[in-house]
Amino acid sequence: MKVLIIGAAGMVGRNLTEALAESGKLGDQPVSGMTLFDVVPASAQGNSRVTVEVETGDISDRAVVGRLVAGRPEVIFHLAAIVSGEAEADFDKGYRINMDGTRNLFEAIRALGDYHPRVVYTSSIAVFGAPFPEAIGDEFITAPMTSYGAQKMIGELLLNDYSRRGIFDGVGIRLPTIVVRPGKPNKAASGFFSGIIREPLAGVEAVLPVDDDVQHWVASPASATGFLIHAATMDTAPLGARRCLTMPGLSVTVGEMIAALGEVAGEDRVGLIRREPDATIRAIVAGWPRNFDAARAIEAGFTADASFQDIIRAHMHDTGLREGET
Amino acid sequence: MKVLIIGAAGMVGRNLTEALAESGKLGDQPVSGMTLFDVVPASAQGNSRVTVEVETGDISDRAVVGRLVAGRPEVIFHLAAIVSGEAEADFDKGYRINMDGTRNLFEAIRALGDYHPRVVYTSSIAVFGAPFPEAIGDEFITAPMTSYGAQKMIGELLLNDYSRRGIFDGVGIRLPTIVVRPGKPNKAASGFFSGIIREPLAGVEAVLPVDDDVQHWVASPASATGFLIHAATMDTAPLGARRCLTMPGLSVTVGEMIAALGEVAGEDRVGLIRREPDATIRAIVAGWPRNFDAARAIEAGFTADASFQDIIRAHMHDTGLREGET
Repeated sequence: MKVLIIGAAGMVGRNLTEALAESGKLGDQPVSGMTLFDVVPASAQGNSRVTVEVETGDISDRAVVGRLVAGRPEVIFHLAAIVSGEAEADFDKGYRINMDGTRNLFEAIRALGDYHPRVVYTSSIAVFGAPFPEAIGDEFITAPMTSYGAQKMIGELLLNDYSRRGIFDGVGIRLPTIVVRPGKPNKAASGFFSGIIREPLAGVEAVLPVDDDVQHWVASPASATGFLIHAATMDTAPLGARRCLTMPGLSVTVGEMIAALGEVAGEDRVGLIRREPDATIRAIVAGWPRNFDAARAIEAGFTADASFQDIIRAHMHDTGLREGET
Repeated sequence: MKVLIIGAAGMVGRNLTEALAESGKLGDQPVSGMTLFDVVPASAQGNSRVTVEVETGDISDRAVVGRLVAGRPEVIFHLAAIVSGEAEADFDKGYRINMDGTRNLFEAIRALGDYHPRVVYTSSIAVFGAPFPEAIGDEFITAPMTSYGAQKMIGELLLNDYSRRGIFDGVGIRLPTIVVRPGKPNKAASGFFSGIIREPLAGVEAVLPVDDDVQHWVASPASATGFLIHAATMDTAPLGARRCLTMPGLSVTVGEMIAALGEVAGEDRVGLIRREPDATIRAIVAGWPRNFDAARAIEAGFTADASFQDIIRAHMHDTGLREGET
């Protein structure tokens, strides 16, 4: 089986690539080759069983996307996107990559005529906008309040329509905020959710710009990889015309995250969190979803982390920290 | 005030043009000029107060749309669309006109920079797809089951996002099925809803392809005109980020429609309805919404017909028939 990963250089793409290279399989099918595509070269993580090709380019160029699908990979992961903040700052770029790029991919598949791959598309909980109910269910209106959310939702509508017509077999997964993101702090407004765990564990001070009662919907990097692999291998028949699912996650408050950090890694770590309220970030976060009832995804076999403690432990494991040794 | 009507040659566009020409006003603003645009020439219905220009072209041509908005009309009605059946039969044409054409219009407005008109966009209850609750509320998921519905929903997302960014001041209205459509029967799957009233009133046999208990969401042509005028003149501030509203209507069964026909026009008219079940039409109609709770639109001042009897009487009035004289 050949696999194409578009957006392979990002965190989610790297983790997926690593998992596929390590197992050499997708479900019970051996992976013979992977094409890793992004605007910058993804790191090739092949081995003797899996041939890896690294390609770079711009998905808003139809010809580039046409060449990518010409090899007819059985599974395509479409993870590429201009993120929320950048899509808000650069209107044209957001629409060009997130909307036109996604459509280019779908049209390139359609142009081949007799080619009907599984397409896994990463959408986002940004397709939802306030005001929200206590828990957002599978029938709640998608009313994005950012250009990124609108673009992701347009991708969902296209994915549903192309799938309904049998052009390809699509699954859209709305990812929770991924916590704990490894690496350096980034400038995303959601960055502090990872920072208040990652930095103290590394012995570094972290800034918390919101109140302790801020509640959010999170999943670990490993859960995200699991969602993608399940979406690529699941039976899509039960999804009917609604191919896009809110992924399961944990609804936790900042206070609960900090308590879990103290429990798993010690109270001295908690002392490295410095409260520095930021009105701008508080306002942005106030419009974000806090809690979901992801019943359809759970019924379809997607599984989330059992607890926030587990998420912290997984991050410590990934970064070589052992509990009690931090 | 200058008004641009895109899709002016269709039934809804003709009725709107007529109403604006007759009153010479939009809200309390005098209409100085109307540009009527469509793929075929719309009939100019100007008078001494209102200058009318008729133009033809294709909204999928960006240059054409650029020229249309160059005159900076204060209000733009965007009614143009490839209808449901044709968008399903011709994938490329549906996306080209309904999605790209709508985006071309929005982008042409944006390109002018300091121009922020009111844009009224006709969406459709086709943005919803089964399974439905008993009455579809304003927070129910939009999950279209046709390409037309997907394209209309993409237009809604763009309209919301461009409005949120202050590019223009948009209102989207999801029209019920319009009954009684004047003129000849057409091939739309929904055509019989009008046919079973219009044809008997004209002394002609009508075919009913579905069962009497089929229930649907309808509004009169006059209500549709009223929706458009209210959308063009209302205060949009209370809409917040959700600029698209399900219009109020009447939820009636075919049996209730036929009973109303008998009541208003006599039982002999009912005798002209011939039941000829059609499995294809029954299957299509089974996927359509039956009933809505259009609370937001009602709160925003949109008003529907009081009864199906009134809808029949309005059609009789429009076509010169008087009650008791049919």
